[in-house]
Amino acid sequence: MDFSSFITSLATSFIIFVILMMLFAWLCTKPGNAVIYYPNRILKGMDPWEGSRSKTRNPFAWIREAFSSTEQDVVKMSGVDSAVYFVFLSTVFGIFLISGMVLLPLLLALHATEKIPRVVDSTGKNAFDDLDKLSMAHLKERGHRLFASAATCYWVSIVTYYLLWKAYKHVSDLRAEALMSAGIRAEQFAVLVRDIPSSSEGYSTKQQVDSFFRQIYPETYYKSIVVTENKAVCKIYEELEDCKKKVARAEIIYGNSKEVNPEGVRPTHRTGLLGLIGKKVDSIEYYNKKITELTPKLEAAQKVTLKDKQQRSALVFFTNRVTAAAAAQSAHARMIDTWTVIDAPEPRQLLWTNLHKTFYEREVRQYVVYFIVFMTICFYMIPIGLISAFTTLPNLRKLLPFLKPILDITSVRTVLGAYLPQIALIVFLALLPKFLLFLSKAEGIPSQSHAERAASGKYFYFIVLNVFIGVTIGGTLFDSFKDIQKNPDSITQKLAASLPGNATFFLTFVALKFFVGYGLELSRIVPLIIFHLKRKFLCKTEGDVKEAWLPSDLGYATRIPNDMLILTITLCYSVIAPLILPFGAVYFGLGWLVFRNQVLKVYVPKYESYGKMWPHMHVRILAALLLFQATMLGYFGVKQFLYTPIIFPLPIMTIIFSFVCSKKFYRFFQSTALEVASQELKETPNMEIVYNSFIPPCMNADKVPEEQLNV
Amino acid sequence: MDFSSFITSLATSFIIFVILMMLFAWLCTKPGNAVIYYPNRILKGMDPWEGSRSKTRNPFAWIREAFSSTEQDVVKMSGVDSAVYFVFLSTVFGIFLISGMVLLPLLLALHATEKIPRVVDSTGKNAFDDLDKLSMAHLKERGHRLFASAATCYWVSIVTYYLLWKAYKHVSDLRAEALMSAGIRAEQFAVLVRDIPSSSEGYSTKQQVDSFFRQIYPETYYKSIVVTENKAVCKIYEELEDCKKKVARAEIIYGNSKEVNPEGVRPTHRTGLLGLIGKKVDSIEYYNKKITELTPKLEAAQKVTLKDKQQRSALVFFTNRVTAAAAAQSAHARMIDTWTVIDAPEPRQLLWTNLHKTFYEREVRQYVVYFIVFMTICFYMIPIGLISAFTTLPNLRKLLPFLKPILDITSVRTVLGAYLPQIALIVFLALLPKFLLFLSKAEGIPSQSHAERAASGKYFYFIVLNVFIGVTIGGTLFDSFKDIQKNPDSITQKLAASLPGNATFFLTFVALKFFVGYGLELSRIVPLIIFHLKRKFLCKTEGDVKEAWLPSDLGYATRIPNDMLILTITLCYSVIAPLILPFGAVYFGLGWLVFRNQVLKVYVPKYESYGKMWPHMHVRILAALLLFQATMLGYFGVKQFLYTPIIFPLPIMTIIFSFVCSKKFYRFFQSTALEVASQELKETPNMEIVYNSFIPPCMNADKVPEEQLNV
Repeated sequence: MDFSSFITSLATSFIIFVILMMLFAWLCTKPGNAVIYYPNRILKGMDPWEGSRSKTRNPFAWIREAFSSTEQDVVKMSGVDSAVYFVFLSTVFGIFLISGMVLLPLLLALHATEKIPRVVDSTGKNAFDDLDKLSMAHLKERGHRLFASAATCYWVSIVTYYLLWKAYKHVSDLRAEALMSAGIRAEQFAVLVRDIPSSSEGYSTKQQVDSFFRQIYPETYYKSIVVTENKAVCKIYEELEDCKKKVARAEIIYGNSKEVNPEGVRPTHRTGLLGLIGKKVDSIEYYNKKITELTPKLEAAQKVTLKDKQQRSALVFFTNRVTAAAAAQSAHARMIDTWTVIDAPEPRQLLWTNLHKTFYEREVRQYVVYFIVFMTICFYMIPIGLISAFTTLPNLRKLLPFLKPILDITSVRTVLGAYLPQIALIVFLALLPKFLLFLSKAEGIPSQSHAERAASGKYFYFIVLNVFIGVTIGGTLFDSFKDIQKNPDSITQKLAASLPGNATFFLTFVALKFFVGYGLELSRIVPLIIFHLKRKFLCKTEGDVKEAWLPSDLGYATRIPNDMLILTITLCYSVIAPLILPFGAVYFGLGWLVFRNQVLKVYVPKYESYGKMWPHMHVRILAALLLFQATMLGYFGVKQFLYTPIIFPLPIMTIIFSFVCSKKFYRFFQSTALEVASQELKETPNMEIVYNSFIPPCMNADKVPEEQLNV
Repeated sequence: MDFSSFITSLATSFIIFVILMMLFAWLCTKPGNAVIYYPNRILKGMDPWEGSRSKTRNPFAWIREAFSSTEQDVVKMSGVDSAVYFVFLSTVFGIFLISGMVLLPLLLALHATEKIPRVVDSTGKNAFDDLDKLSMAHLKERGHRLFASAATCYWVSIVTYYLLWKAYKHVSDLRAEALMSAGIRAEQFAVLVRDIPSSSEGYSTKQQVDSFFRQIYPETYYKSIVVTENKAVCKIYEELEDCKKKVARAEIIYGNSKEVNPEGVRPTHRTGLLGLIGKKVDSIEYYNKKITELTPKLEAAQKVTLKDKQQRSALVFFTNRVTAAAAAQSAHARMIDTWTVIDAPEPRQLLWTNLHKTFYEREVRQYVVYFIVFMTICFYMIPIGLISAFTTLPNLRKLLPFLKPILDITSVRTVLGAYLPQIALIVFLALLPKFLLFLSKAEGIPSQSHAERAASGKYFYFIVLNVFIGVTIGGTLFDSFKDIQKNPDSITQKLAASLPGNATFFLTFVALKFFVGYGLELSRIVPLIIFHLKRKFLCKTEGDVKEAWLPSDLGYATRIPNDMLILTITLCYSVIAPLILPFGAVYFGLGWLVFRNQVLKVYVPKYESYGKMWPHMHVRILAALLLFQATMLGYFGVKQFLYTPIIFPLPIMTIIFSFVCSKKFYRFFQSTALEVASQELKETPNMEIVYNSFIPPCMNADKVPEEQLNV
């Protein structure tokens, strides 16, 4: 990529960014869009525009608001997990900023002023374009200036260690503060018990759990909820809820029709398939009758479930936090495969269908899933290649003859011919995060947050291995495959020449990511359009409208691996092509700003894991650092730097640092320290409320339904 | 080794064994020797001969008694640790018995009936002597009979897995039963707290501990003992105790002298060096005066110590067992390096000087010790070689001229010349277990039992690596070093020929171990002689006599690694030379019988760790099995057996089995399951007694001294 196309690409991204910013500034002031730009505030019952006092609506007010918001605001509006995400963003921003302050002036000067003979590549052009002159490729082999590169490797590593250490401490404080809070959080009084052994004396699981825990905790044991097989009862419950919604909708339609005609037209529908065939009935009457039918049926089903469908798992409640925290950390039975006790997740993020899985089932599932993920990451190109090979136009014609008329249109054929091979890959990449989340849940993990962490970890390996290493090493090898065949020794030469070239590619990639990505993120064009379409054509009741604008959460499972990719790329090229550092810094700095706005005003977290994501991010930042150090080792080798061994201590330091951090901090992220749990509460907990909050909605007819409950 | 010398060696060992047995049968019936042969019974206040009802004293009564004793008797007389040692002995005996029942008839028949051409070795003799004909060396290379050897490898492995699984379960039951017992054991109500952070507000450690634990356990917290720096106070205490002993002795001497002379001679001594110089004083008066001087000094020192020498470690007491068990398993502070809480060891086995060591000090010490042990195991021959090289006779003469007259005696010179080189090695081997125990204590381990486990582990690696692998591989390579230099390919041939040869050596080694070792063990000739000498020449008071016969404990730190060596040897040669199996079986069977007697009547355990030694032994048995499987893999390779890969699954199975066992059972050995701790006690514990039992004797003048307390 030469300099002019680099500038073109950068300029295009920037223009898109500016347009999206302007769109945002204009759209977000319209009251009708408030539900898209301020849903988090609206759901918390606040005035959407409360931050900007004047109604003049300065289009850049959000920037001021974002900067003036404190960490406590974030915790209050969006929980500890979001605050931890900002710690991540600011830490990485800090790493790039402090590294850049030293690396940029030093290395750029050294690279640009190196005098080396003009190298001409195979096509006769100068091998170094303007950008490449600023990279390490421009340094002489075995030159003394390579010492500066080596020293900067140490600088980057030490900055990373220092900031990560500070960040881990800070996150640990955040977590402690949240867990110590005097407010009553139901999950702090509960533990999740799995692998309850089957009793021989014909006791029910409920009796077993009660007698077991009452013996151990005679004073602090409160009650238990035995996990039940809720499939049947949930089906009835959903049907009932559906009927209630439909009655509400039919009544609104009837009410609206009264405005036109004073008698009104009672809405009707057909009972058959999709409302198209069958007997025509009065909707309000029909659904009301169905509700009166279903209500006793639900109650009966609930009773049957409670009695006969008990599974070997339970939620156990204690009357104080210390006992619950200590219980979650103690072995209750002599064998690890019975009476496994862990911290209870929040009710809203419990994965009920996973709770009954036994210890051995979980172990086996885990290894099977690891194997599937390994195979997917390493060999995903094979099935995709096969699919694209088979979905050629002639094959499609043969296999799906009814598509023939469409395929015969020339323009369709041209487009399909060009894109068909990529479609399988695009579909795969779009579905992969969901597939990984599905696999993580299939491991038998009991909570949504844990499953997302697991999925995020898997996605990280996929992205780093395939995108980063694939593009860097694979691209280089593939490009020069023929040369290498002729002359195998040239491979190191090729790598040396192409690594800095790849840097330019990644530079534009990072820029595209933050300009277009953050532009779309902030302006929320896509959710806005979908919302307006839905409201116009689908929504009848207030509930429907609310459902149409309800925002999602931050989506850590895909967001963090993507950030990690940028982090890995920037770190790895930081010394080779230091020009990437400001781009990386802007990615994380701008990200901090944009997400500060989004978190305070838009996204509603689906769960709170009290920063359990952090150790996971910490380890992956260190993995990226290790990859950087390995890359540098390799690149110094390629540059025939005689003192390459002075880099050897770096990877060892990283491993020791990672070990020390995990030893020092990690245990508190696994379980709650008793010191923290023993802080006084502001009031005696009402245990009945704590207990009820864990009952799934389909088992409790009087309860408000929780959308997030995964039954 | 040929057949006749094998028989000679065996016969000699057996004759020694018979003589020792007869000595034992004769000596143990003499009442004066009861304190040597029945000290455990005497200390427990039982009649030494209570088992054998008739006073006819059948010399083989001990065998009947040993067989008729139950596991419960062992637990009652000697604790769970001893019972676990018997589980170990019987499990290994079972492995060898069941393996042998299949391997002996099958393999001996196959080996002996193989028809191969007569092989002549370099000296012209038949390469196979009578014993070697029974070994696998006698099988044809690539022969079909090797399939039988492979099958028996599976048989031995599966028998081992099965018996180990059963044993682990059984030991786990034993441990649970002991921990569940309704009796009050002080250590079950206490936890050991280390790494107490230094408080900024000027509180004492005591106040800090009290407020910290009272907040977390408001209802069950009882009291705490802060660990103090007791060196000064202990010195005074020991001096005082010494004076008390000397007064008692002087009074007895004075009393005895009255029998001769009605007025008596008041004993005197000199106050100077070793009682040889200085003023002559009346002993009784002198020591009594010293006691009256030291008593207030001790009290003052105790006060100072309690107040000013508090260290950052404490013992914390709870009023119930469940809280103590849960506390030992829970993280109390957010950082792992503060407020570390673990199970309290028994008072008698606390290593007080290790308690104050901080987390980082312990970590660093551990790695340093591992490094020293690694160096010792691998390179111990180097310093010994150097020492023996320097301690030649001419060197000794030069360096220590005053020895000249002795060294000039011809007979001394001959003996020293012959043995001097070995003396360094012998001294090293004798001191090694003590050195390893010292190193293990230097790691900062808080209890004696844990330190002995650690030392035993280190000794195991030393023994297996040096004795077994050294003799087998090293011996072979060394013997045939010159041949190999000529023809490097012959190395596998050499190994193939020499492995079974080594088997014969080990056969006699095992026989020597059990005949002579157990003979000495049972007859207790050495302690008997020492005791009678001491009583005659040194002992004055009753206490002196008791001190002279007080038995030691089983000494797991050296006993278990030695058993492990026999186990490793027998397992590794079980298929190659199945004749070793009966010898191994007799070693463990006879061991069971002899130690049943010794444990019930002789040894007094120094501590009770509730079977924590077992996981340690279990892992090492599996390590021996792995070594066996690796040896077989290598030997099949040497035999050019084409189907060697059918052995590959075996090591993998062993690793999986070890992983599953440690996952399933190990946690309960690390900490007490709450289910177990929650069993009801037969009475409400008197917390004051529990508390006092942990006060070191030098800090508590009113207390009976505990010999075992390691201050």
